[in-house]
Amino acid sequence: MVDAHGKSPILAVGSVAFDSIKNPFGEANRVVGGSATYFSLAASFFTDVRLVAVVGEDFAERGAEVFGGRSIDTSGLQVMPGETFRWKGVYGFDLNQRETIYTKLNVFEDFQPVISEEWRTSPFVFLGNIHPKLQLDVLDQVESPKLVAADTMNLWIENTPDDLAKVLERIDILIINDSEARELSRESNLVKAARTLRAMGPATVVIKRGEHGVLTTTSRDGEFFTAPALPLEEVFDPTGAGDTFAGGFVGYLAACGNTHDSSLARAIIYGSTLASFAVEDFSIDRLLRLEQREVDERFRLFKRMTHFDEV
Amino acid sequence: MVDAHGKSPILAVGSVAFDSIKNPFGEANRVVGGSATYFSLAASFFTDVRLVAVVGEDFAERGAEVFGGRSIDTSGLQVMPGETFRWKGVYGFDLNQRETIYTKLNVFEDFQPVISEEWRTSPFVFLGNIHPKLQLDVLDQVESPKLVAADTMNLWIENTPDDLAKVLERIDILIINDSEARELSRESNLVKAARTLRAMGPATVVIKRGEHGVLTTTSRDGEFFTAPALPLEEVFDPTGAGDTFAGGFVGYLAACGNTHDSSLARAIIYGSTLASFAVEDFSIDRLLRLEQREVDERFRLFKRMTHFDEV
Repeated sequence: MVDAHGKSPILAVGSVAFDSIKNPFGEANRVVGGSATYFSLAASFFTDVRLVAVVGEDFAERGAEVFGGRSIDTSGLQVMPGETFRWKGVYGFDLNQRETIYTKLNVFEDFQPVISEEWRTSPFVFLGNIHPKLQLDVLDQVESPKLVAADTMNLWIENTPDDLAKVLERIDILIINDSEARELSRESNLVKAARTLRAMGPATVVIKRGEHGVLTTTSRDGEFFTAPALPLEEVFDPTGAGDTFAGGFVGYLAACGNTHDSSLARAIIYGSTLASFAVEDFSIDRLLRLEQREVDERFRLFKRMTHFDEV
Repeated sequence: MVDAHGKSPILAVGSVAFDSIKNPFGEANRVVGGSATYFSLAASFFTDVRLVAVVGEDFAERGAEVFGGRSIDTSGLQVMPGETFRWKGVYGFDLNQRETIYTKLNVFEDFQPVISEEWRTSPFVFLGNIHPKLQLDVLDQVESPKLVAADTMNLWIENTPDDLAKVLERIDILIINDSEARELSRESNLVKAARTLRAMGPATVVIKRGEHGVLTTTSRDGEFFTAPALPLEEVFDPTGAGDTFAGGFVGYLAACGNTHDSSLARAIIYGSTLASFAVEDFSIDRLLRLEQREVDERFRLFKRMTHFDEV
């Protein structure tokens, strides 16, 4: 269950996409995106990632460019006839708000995640915000994983609540953004929302609040761990920040092999650290240039910026 | 310059008011409020406070009720013929937004802060968000204070920018909320806003972000200290939270006597701790019931909720 380096590999299932992004600072067309892409790149700083997703024939050589030379095994990346999933979004000056111009599922419409014999025993599993039926499908294929983390989105909260409820009963960690947490729990207060979501299944609920940081439940009942986002002078493109956070978060947990409160806290900070880099450039560009040394430095900066002593 | 207990007293100048507050949870009429009230109550947990403000004859016996039995010297509380400053505000379910129904300056209109001979050498000075001309008037009366902290508000940013600019050149710490920081600096990004405001005079800029916590500059150029707000299940009445924060913040600095980065960080957390209590009930009710033991406990809770170790 544990690889040669003492770290557990992560099975990551989600989307790989071509994004088109427009914001006040510029425009990027048909750049690589997708929840599984950001997740895998971030998680690969900590452990081995087993990527399961689907792309069209138009993705072709991009796979090697993006995932090559990293601890990311792309043997689960299916190539199907047709075009890759496309998304286009426009941001205004408030980068917390975005408008989706179009979503073209393309080959993703018929995606059926198939987990290979070897990968079925993956100790860590991350389910991106794909259809809950697909998430359940993956859970039916894996064999007693040590930890399952999942994300979801408004589409499934509104359209397939029953399937989503089944997913929640079978996962250990729910990673969700603040508006989705409110919608799913029907609580406007995030502390109450986290508590309600926890009662729906997952032992740990992690709420992503964008530029306002992260809130997570801990093993102390009713107690939370909370982290601000790193104060950044320039936020260039927030696309994928949440998935990058999830990658750093689950990646660190898989590397350390436990979910004690102190590990969860460090994982939150590693997730936030990776996300703080992702937003510095369009698409995955900053993550592709990112070095381990920079990650370690920024983790320490995070500590200086948030820690205080008792007298 | 330092009192018998080794702590410096604070000269606090601002408003004492009667507030009427309506929110989705209830209504409170003609309850005690005002920036100097919240500030003094919070600061008195740390050091002696010398309160300078004005009230009408209708305030009468309330002074003893509110300030009595605490380290608050009210000999600078002027009683003038007429009515006390009145404010009425209404909150919706988003407690970050409020509508002012009326502001009646009453006796505050002719307020002239007079600092007694003895108080002119106060080592710590806090200037609530009163007219910048009054803030300057106080600064002209005090003799080489060790530290001056000040707040301001949109009214002065818009109507008396030149007077405000003079204040900024003469203070050490600006304590300001996020929307005011953006307006005064003309920067939407808070990191840039803090840097711009610092260039206008104050060595330290503290930006209050309501339920999203606090951001402050440090002595390391371009580096910040940031704290989330305590995640609260019930926020009842946010009126005065910012002034309560300021009281805990400046109160702690006056008690410890320096502004090293580590002291600033602790001061931010003490300020946030006091503010987290203030919002639990209408008006100053929770602060009046608050015990030192509760403050210490919540400070430690803050630490558990935000600290992480390096591996």
